[in-house]
Amino acid sequence: MRDLLMIPGPVDVDADVLAALAAPVPGHLDADFIATFGRALKRLREISLAPGAQPFVVSGSGTLAMELAVANLTEPGDRALVVNTGYFSDRMAFILERHGAKVTHVRAPLGGAPDAAQVEAELRKGPFKLMTVTHVDTSTAVLAPVESLVKAARRHGVLAVVDGVCATAGEPFHQDAWGADVYLTASQKAVGVPPGLALLTVSPRALEAWRQRKVPVASVYPDWAEWLPVMEAYEAGKPAYFATPPTSLIRALDVSLGQILAEGLEARFERHRRMARAFRAAWSAMGLRMLPTSEAVAANTLSALYYPDGMDASLVGRVKAQGVAIAGGLHPELKTRYFRVGHMNRVTAADVLATVGAIERALQAGGHRATASGTGVAAAQAVLSD
Amino acid sequence: MRDLLMIPGPVDVDADVLAALAAPVPGHLDADFIATFGRALKRLREISLAPGAQPFVVSGSGTLAMELAVANLTEPGDRALVVNTGYFSDRMAFILERHGAKVTHVRAPLGGAPDAAQVEAELRKGPFKLMTVTHVDTSTAVLAPVESLVKAARRHGVLAVVDGVCATAGEPFHQDAWGADVYLTASQKAVGVPPGLALLTVSPRALEAWRQRKVPVASVYPDWAEWLPVMEAYEAGKPAYFATPPTSLIRALDVSLGQILAEGLEARFERHRRMARAFRAAWSAMGLRMLPTSEAVAANTLSALYYPDGMDASLVGRVKAQGVAIAGGLHPELKTRYFRVGHMNRVTAADVLATVGAIERALQAGGHRATASGTGVAAAQAVLSD
Repeated sequence: MRDLLMIPGPVDVDADVLAALAAPVPGHLDADFIATFGRALKRLREISLAPGAQPFVVSGSGTLAMELAVANLTEPGDRALVVNTGYFSDRMAFILERHGAKVTHVRAPLGGAPDAAQVEAELRKGPFKLMTVTHVDTSTAVLAPVESLVKAARRHGVLAVVDGVCATAGEPFHQDAWGADVYLTASQKAVGVPPGLALLTVSPRALEAWRQRKVPVASVYPDWAEWLPVMEAYEAGKPAYFATPPTSLIRALDVSLGQILAEGLEARFERHRRMARAFRAAWSAMGLRMLPTSEAVAANTLSALYYPDGMDASLVGRVKAQGVAIAGGLHPELKTRYFRVGHMNRVTAADVLATVGAIERALQAGGHRATASGTGVAAAQAVLSD
Repeated sequence: MRDLLMIPGPVDVDADVLAALAAPVPGHLDADFIATFGRALKRLREISLAPGAQPFVVSGSGTLAMELAVANLTEPGDRALVVNTGYFSDRMAFILERHGAKVTHVRAPLGGAPDAAQVEAELRKGPFKLMTVTHVDTSTAVLAPVESLVKAARRHGVLAVVDGVCATAGEPFHQDAWGADVYLTASQKAVGVPPGLALLTVSPRALEAWRQRKVPVASVYPDWAEWLPVMEAYEAGKPAYFATPPTSLIRALDVSLGQILAEGLEARFERHRRMARAFRAAWSAMGLRMLPTSEAVAANTLSALYYPDGMDASLVGRVKAQGVAIAGGLHPELKTRYFRVGHMNRVTAADVLATVGAIERALQAGGHRATASGTGVAAAQAVLSD
């Protein structure tokens, strides 16, 4: 029996997405594949609500997507402001510094997110070339107030790069309306495809900043110069070559993006919010404390929860013994003190109850007697029945 | 009806490889996946005949594999010798230069490969830090005399990097015995997996050269520092995290590498040689001239052929109308004057005859009357019946 996969990525994907992977490998010059790739690029732009942006689909992980964003917009000596909400914001700073940026961090206490006033106070100390925000940090489950932060960056003429890896297609994002310059993400979370695709939508302003560079991008593989003509050609229905595109994964991406648009972005975001509310009701009923310091900064795509007193990382194994795969902590400051539950992409009411039930049983088996058995599933069910 | 895919990558893959992709997405922390990843790493080492080497499996294309090799071994000012046999040797030089290397090219006339004496004469003008060779250049179908070139580099204490993208698991390669320092490849050719994996096996000597670096690797994503602990951990049966591994593709890789080892490397190389001989007999009988200047430098994994007089790139479309997908030219100097046929991975006698037959019919339909219809398939069949 396969466990229910409830880690914060990779996530379970739809049967039609798997079927797209199971079909014979498409050649990158096939007319069918050219049409598929072109459509996937258009759909990616729709998902980001960025009719004016240039989409990129590249073989690689979410970290490559981060480097694809930052390597092209940073020149040695540029100042960058990192809105830091966890491990992946630290990683963004690490990548920025590798490309020569001078990084300033703006932080809240762990589990919180800096607000627009705090970020704006830092922006005034600029000039900064770019600001980065992690939409949802997978390590902390903190949801940043992206709209107000991006708008603050715009007011200061600073390029806004948003890392949507654990958010895209699960949390609302309006790239053009908010004025974000790069929205970057990966395939294996709420986008609903196995891992292996780095995805970006880039504003004309960011492309122009890249065109004004004085020094070449540090490496070839992340250089937009190589990918831009390929993306433009495929979207125009013509093949072009830089590196062999991951044809099977791109076909799967096209299927998943089509499903996302068929569900409707607003409906999809609402489903994620509803499932997250059910989970939060369960956590609260079960006496589990969330790592995010308030509901306002709690992601709808995953939960991060402190182990109850007397419990440790062995809980993850006990939940697995109950048939559900969840993940341990990731943030270096407290990785042994909390665990994470992914709830994105196909997540259903059935998944919520199965997961809460497994955690509840594992807690009871581990001697956690804070609440009566059944309290968690009942609380989740009450939200789901609403 | 689907065309027979006979381009030089991506290639058709086995049904069991597709089935591995079609199964539910593995979590990167699942015990099953950890075992699979560890086994795939061990198998990659076996395929390269490099018991002493460190394998790397990274989400990305073959070009990323090239950068993963070169970015880690090059510091600004290092001298590199590029044995140039086509477009992908040019690309290697381009990547080397991006990382600050001073590149010297050693070339033969187009369609040929420099021999060991010619390369050794250049090596004497060193010192070079590294030498790169394209095992089979996908643009020219030229097979380089890798064994003698790598041994020449070793005699001069020069690191030998071999690009096996269009060769690995199709052309013999003995990494440890010959003394190659990096063998890099990609998933979508004779390795028999859809595109999306960059693969490397790295010698202890190359790792030591990397450890002696004075400046950091230019970008984060290609930096061995991030990947080495992950590869070591998974091979030791433990998970480790840098970026989410492409779990579905890695499972498919493990299946394909298992099939390759089950077939046996020598048997597999011999099958590729036999199919290539059959193709060459057909080309010769049909009056088609190969781009490689002699059999000694003709790859066994693909053919590159000049269009006959009076024919042009429209031939590719006419062959497709006959049910077989082949590819046009790629080398910038003569890309409109030749076409390419891939013959690797699962290639069978049936594929040879179907492909030769389709090309023969397309030539006849295009007015090519150099030979009587049926000459090509008969010549191929004579080799296949041997």
